[in-house]
Amino acid sequence: MITGDETLGQVSEEGLLHSIFPFFAPQPGLLVGPGDDAAVVACNGALVATTDAMVRGRDWLDDWSSAADVGAKLVTQNLADVAAMGGVATSILVTLVADPATRAAWARDFARSIGERAAEAGVAVAGGDLSSAPPGVLLVSITALGDLGGREPVLRSGARPGDTVAVCGTLGRSAAGLLLLQREGTRAARHGGIHRVCLDHHRAPVAPLTAGPQAALAGVTAMLDVSDGLLRDGSRIAASSGVRLDLDGSALAPDVEPLAAAVGEEAARECVLAGGEEHSLLATFPAGDLPTGWRAIGAVAGGSGVTLDGVPQQPRGWDHFAG
Amino acid sequence: MITGDETLGQVSEEGLLHSIFPFFAPQPGLLVGPGDDAAVVACNGALVATTDAMVRGRDWLDDWSSAADVGAKLVTQNLADVAAMGGVATSILVTLVADPATRAAWARDFARSIGERAAEAGVAVAGGDLSSAPPGVLLVSITALGDLGGREPVLRSGARPGDTVAVCGTLGRSAAGLLLLQREGTRAARHGGIHRVCLDHHRAPVAPLTAGPQAALAGVTAMLDVSDGLLRDGSRIAASSGVRLDLDGSALAPDVEPLAAAVGEEAARECVLAGGEEHSLLATFPAGDLPTGWRAIGAVAGGSGVTLDGVPQQPRGWDHFAG
Repeated sequence: MITGDETLGQVSEEGLLHSIFPFFAPQPGLLVGPGDDAAVVACNGALVATTDAMVRGRDWLDDWSSAADVGAKLVTQNLADVAAMGGVATSILVTLVADPATRAAWARDFARSIGERAAEAGVAVAGGDLSSAPPGVLLVSITALGDLGGREPVLRSGARPGDTVAVCGTLGRSAAGLLLLQREGTRAARHGGIHRVCLDHHRAPVAPLTAGPQAALAGVTAMLDVSDGLLRDGSRIAASSGVRLDLDGSALAPDVEPLAAAVGEEAARECVLAGGEEHSLLATFPAGDLPTGWRAIGAVAGGSGVTLDGVPQQPRGWDHFAG
Repeated sequence: MITGDETLGQVSEEGLLHSIFPFFAPQPGLLVGPGDDAAVVACNGALVATTDAMVRGRDWLDDWSSAADVGAKLVTQNLADVAAMGGVATSILVTLVADPATRAAWARDFARSIGERAAEAGVAVAGGDLSSAPPGVLLVSITALGDLGGREPVLRSGARPGDTVAVCGTLGRSAAGLLLLQREGTRAARHGGIHRVCLDHHRAPVAPLTAGPQAALAGVTAMLDVSDGLLRDGSRIAASSGVRLDLDGSALAPDVEPLAAAVGEEAARECVLAGGEEHSLLATFPAGDLPTGWRAIGAVAGGSGVTLDGVPQQPRGWDHFAG
């Protein structure tokens, strides 16, 4: 039992594992769970696998994000990658690499949050790794595994001229939330309404996970999740598919407008175009009706790159090492 | 092209990926490789999944281990976990979280080493994650996926009284290598012979990967890889199986003796009993002939814990947070 201010070094590896395993609900596809050399999960012909890490000081600040926030965000960004392939996530492996002076309660709250988000999505926490780190270092990582249900994976390379460019989920909220924190610090949380919505999405985003496999069933031609910004991620579909994405500014106005009330008109526009960590889905569909929950924001044409109202855009957004 | 002393920040994420992707040989089971939201790998009913991280300053020191050493060790420790389940590793995901001031050549050499070790084992580098870290932080992690070939996974819990305790591979070499580095620093490398063998095993261990699935075919009852020390890992089999492991000191003498020439008699004995990061396989088999490459070091009895020549042993070895 972790009760107060014990450190990880004080509760030991086994003590921590004993405290957190109950947070991880059993799932049907988990054949061997945590505690052996490796996990064993059911799979069916083809498996989607992705991994994503977060490190304190670059990907979050303790002043702005709780352990539960970090756990929720880490789950979402990994499961969104599985959804973007058209897959249904089935299990995750969780890594925590921490200075032994880290409060054990942080690790407990992180694990509980992961267990909750995973259970909501029907995903098993199959295993992971605990390691100690030098003073001050705290890093978390998840590998997510998913099932394609016998379908082909949805790649970035299938967009064709004439397709519709569409989004499922929000745009710009995470970036606007970050901007509010940068401007006002934790005092940003005193607001309600759209301010709070943006803060929440930055700290613990929710992604439209079921829309990924639904899009695959509906004939989506290319898809990814918006992790590095609409323009940068859009340019990835354009480059992989050998096409140009023509975005329609008026279709993005409903994304910009509510954010403008929180961060101002110009910043809101930049958040929608270049804001990362949103984890909505960006995709291209053959012309015609879109699946429920998707809205058109442009069209695919021959050429290269991304335009907005006919003007070529630089693919600005997040580069991990230059950022 | 990475030519000299550029940092990761100078070559950018895309520049680094462009440099390292050629190191990763294609493999038959890799359906979608690096570059999309997630990888897609072939799988066959049940999948083994494991993950293991290493962080600079705790798991290695740059003065003692090259980037190629770190890559090789990280591959070995992950693939050994798959082998210990009786599985054949098929693919890995690789994570690098690095201070942008890290030399790009480090990342290149690390990736090349991973590509080489993976190719030797017939394993695909399916994908991974690159992220930036605060100043001074360098962390690497692998998730390995493997196939059971239709067999049941080999757990730690199947040992039964009357079974033979056996080892495939060496004992104590990694710990002896570390001890030499702690005593002599890099001057330890001036020796040849067993000194060099121990240093090499500590820096870039080789594990008996094919012995895992072979043991499964031969009816092994419990198995793990020696990552935290013979006594500690042996006590894990004992606890999971509800049995006692009685080790025979004379059977371990051939492990102790050569190490004694490098580190002295008493230290050699401790390295063999409690030395971690060896990644040999420890298993229990029904009484009778052992598969090729395995040697008996004791027997399974009713009870609990681990004894050596009849004397109960404390399960000393490595605890990640207390260590």
